[in-house]
Amino acid sequence: MFHKSTLRSYVILGVILASHTVVGRAASSAPAARNVVLIIGDDHGLQLGCYGDAVIKTPSLDRLAAQGTRFANAFAAVSSCSPSRSVILTGQFNHTNGQYGLAHAAHNFNSLPGVRSLPNLLAEAGYRTGIVGKHHVNPPEAYAFEEQLCYPGGQRNVATMAQAARKFIAASTDRPFFLLVGFHDPHRDKTGFGNDGKFPGLLKVEYKPEDIQVPPWLPDTPEVRHELAEYYESISRMDHGIGLILDAIQQTGLEKDTLVIYVSDNGPPFPGAKTTLYEPGIHLPLIVRSPAQNRRSVTCQAMVSFVDITPTVLDWAGLALPKGVAGRSLLPALDQNNPAGWDVVYGSHTFHEVTMYYPMRMIRTRTHKYILNLANCLEYPLASDLWGSEAWQGILHRGDARCGQRTVNALLHRPREELYDLTKDPNEIHNLAADPANAALLEQVRGQLKQWQENTRDPWLIKYTHE
Amino acid sequence: MFHKSTLRSYVILGVILASHTVVGRAASSAPAARNVVLIIGDDHGLQLGCYGDAVIKTPSLDRLAAQGTRFANAFAAVSSCSPSRSVILTGQFNHTNGQYGLAHAAHNFNSLPGVRSLPNLLAEAGYRTGIVGKHHVNPPEAYAFEEQLCYPGGQRNVATMAQAARKFIAASTDRPFFLLVGFHDPHRDKTGFGNDGKFPGLLKVEYKPEDIQVPPWLPDTPEVRHELAEYYESISRMDHGIGLILDAIQQTGLEKDTLVIYVSDNGPPFPGAKTTLYEPGIHLPLIVRSPAQNRRSVTCQAMVSFVDITPTVLDWAGLALPKGVAGRSLLPALDQNNPAGWDVVYGSHTFHEVTMYYPMRMIRTRTHKYILNLANCLEYPLASDLWGSEAWQGILHRGDARCGQRTVNALLHRPREELYDLTKDPNEIHNLAADPANAALLEQVRGQLKQWQENTRDPWLIKYTHE
Repeated sequence: MFHKSTLRSYVILGVILASHTVVGRAASSAPAARNVVLIIGDDHGLQLGCYGDAVIKTPSLDRLAAQGTRFANAFAAVSSCSPSRSVILTGQFNHTNGQYGLAHAAHNFNSLPGVRSLPNLLAEAGYRTGIVGKHHVNPPEAYAFEEQLCYPGGQRNVATMAQAARKFIAASTDRPFFLLVGFHDPHRDKTGFGNDGKFPGLLKVEYKPEDIQVPPWLPDTPEVRHELAEYYESISRMDHGIGLILDAIQQTGLEKDTLVIYVSDNGPPFPGAKTTLYEPGIHLPLIVRSPAQNRRSVTCQAMVSFVDITPTVLDWAGLALPKGVAGRSLLPALDQNNPAGWDVVYGSHTFHEVTMYYPMRMIRTRTHKYILNLANCLEYPLASDLWGSEAWQGILHRGDARCGQRTVNALLHRPREELYDLTKDPNEIHNLAADPANAALLEQVRGQLKQWQENTRDPWLIKYTHE
Repeated sequence: MFHKSTLRSYVILGVILASHTVVGRAASSAPAARNVVLIIGDDHGLQLGCYGDAVIKTPSLDRLAAQGTRFANAFAAVSSCSPSRSVILTGQFNHTNGQYGLAHAAHNFNSLPGVRSLPNLLAEAGYRTGIVGKHHVNPPEAYAFEEQLCYPGGQRNVATMAQAARKFIAASTDRPFFLLVGFHDPHRDKTGFGNDGKFPGLLKVEYKPEDIQVPPWLPDTPEVRHELAEYYESISRMDHGIGLILDAIQQTGLEKDTLVIYVSDNGPPFPGAKTTLYEPGIHLPLIVRSPAQNRRSVTCQAMVSFVDITPTVLDWAGLALPKGVAGRSLLPALDQNNPAGWDVVYGSHTFHEVTMYYPMRMIRTRTHKYILNLANCLEYPLASDLWGSEAWQGILHRGDARCGQRTVNALLHRPREELYDLTKDPNEIHNLAADPANAALLEQVRGQLKQWQENTRDPWLIKYTHE
């Protein structure tokens, strides 16, 4: 429920904040309201036109990037759905907020008691909050939306999702709103990518397997080409839905009052991407369009993390950061191609499914990545949907030695420490951790990683002393 | 809240059940009500006079055994607090109900949505439900007690706990009651076992380290003797509290209407016991006193599991078993020393603390135990309190090769499969899994174990196919 006194304090805070930050942000004009539309893709990697993919058709996301800022170096803090969404919505690493793995079914991971996320914080400040589509974090009270929007026609029907979003946006009152749009595309279905569904009025963009450019982390097999073509179609469907939502924001006249963010939760649902901390798993799209930014079509090279999204939204809303938030606002970076002081990100993965224990901690700088595999004697577990994919089953049945440039053995059996020089080895194939030439660097990144674990209250710190 | 119509249906059910089962049970008289007092000790192994411990003084539990039935072969299904309590209160293995590990702090394990436990089921049938002391299962709504009884003087004050219990019992109405008493004794404190507390009016029973009989699974070191003496004092304090509760049941005239159960959650808080599936971890006290049993001071040799406790209480209350309950009622066994058909138990451990992933599945017959260690390449993780114990730190600092009869190496580094002949090797030292002479037996127990995992919907079944 909305309380007038809360709104008043929000407005006052907003004004104070605006007066403090308007210079730093070089805002072109003060928006009347400070609405937020946060759009989350499901398992979407860098397969976007505006990120350089020559095959995929994503005109809506390309439009958003042209009107806003595309972060060329944005990183998920974990490559798993619920944990990553918890990071996006709390600004905490998942080892801090407790969302160590998937929220649903037997996995049943729950954020810790007391965790309060963006919808809760914004609602307390007087926002109207709504969600359409995927939620997938627990417990419900920690990620509580006032309105759960219904849409007919199945999870993949981005047209009805967009209609529901439009209705929510158009019903805008004197309260600012926060709308989360959680697409189910381009996640895998039990088989395929949901492309057989009937979606009246929706543009169907199909791809030919032979036109796909297979990335270096996947093998060029018929199964991979077939599945990538299906995956691309699913992405284009989502992009179409995003276009309808952008239209709705424009047509309701709220573009000048609404911060729009597009982000994915984790990398593509293929072996070597999703659930890994390798680049394909965590290097993801992040596009922000603010009415207050001065420049458009900005490509920002800052290394940013998804822990920065909650601080960005709270900054936009003029709200203080709650204690324990790890990230910082991206708003000051929106107009800059190369802002100073954005040169390192961290990653923390522990589970995906509850049976998939594989704790990893990571630091990535401009030039290097270091991964600490805390239970590396275990075989790296593949998510059920990846394990069952045509791509992986093809590899298994043929007994292929490689999955793209990486050997299958290296994918499944990892050393305790991995260190890659990304300037020379962007595909993370040559582990330098054991190379004495890198001893000083190794010592440095180990120390930085541990310090970050301490700062963010990582329960797995216990492994430094108890084993 | 209590609804009269619910009580009526309960009473009718109770009568029907009594008429069906009174012959099988050879009940001496039909109780007026069917109250339940379930008492749970915290980390209490077989250190009781009535279980043959010549040093410990537990007159109250000995009295309960003399008035009821002592199960000589009772086994926890998991040796960890929250998981074991979830088993006790749901009749499901913890891999079924989802309470895979500890409920509190960063561990934050929660039973699955939809899980309903004894207090919920009994409350729906018209029972008054109350808890005094330790709860330690999640979420609250799955283990919901109507009354949470307060008691002053700290967690170890068994006198005020008993007073609170007495007040609840004495307030008995026409509704039957279910009271859970969760002692904090004899769990470890941050240091020691809470024996320095001031407990006015409480009997203090102290033990001399030199009098302790060190069990074969612990080393005979000064630290172990000192800690066992402290542990014994904590057990005697709890026993004193149990005596006060038994007095209360007697003095309120409700003994003839009240089923009393004493059980522990898991084995002693020492290396080689708690959190293991070895005998000291899971072979625990279980004493049941029913007003309806004909014989007293019965020693029952049935192999029973803590999954049988919920079915026992529901049987006593005349309620049907909910779907998915794994155990069966012990009531028909109370008058028998050697009832037929109780010759196998199972165990399932996955976590204790969330950082302590170590999935094990176990089957134990009259003669053998088979343990499948699903992540045996990991070092076996010690619980924080065990790791910090004087007993363990002494072993570490001296670099001892053994922890009792077991080597430290064997304790920490386990094979994938363990098979012990308990008739010849009760301390589980000689693993026979690799011995070709046992190939047929091994094949048999593997099959039984897998079948049980299937029957009980174990998520870790995935490890048979995906790795």
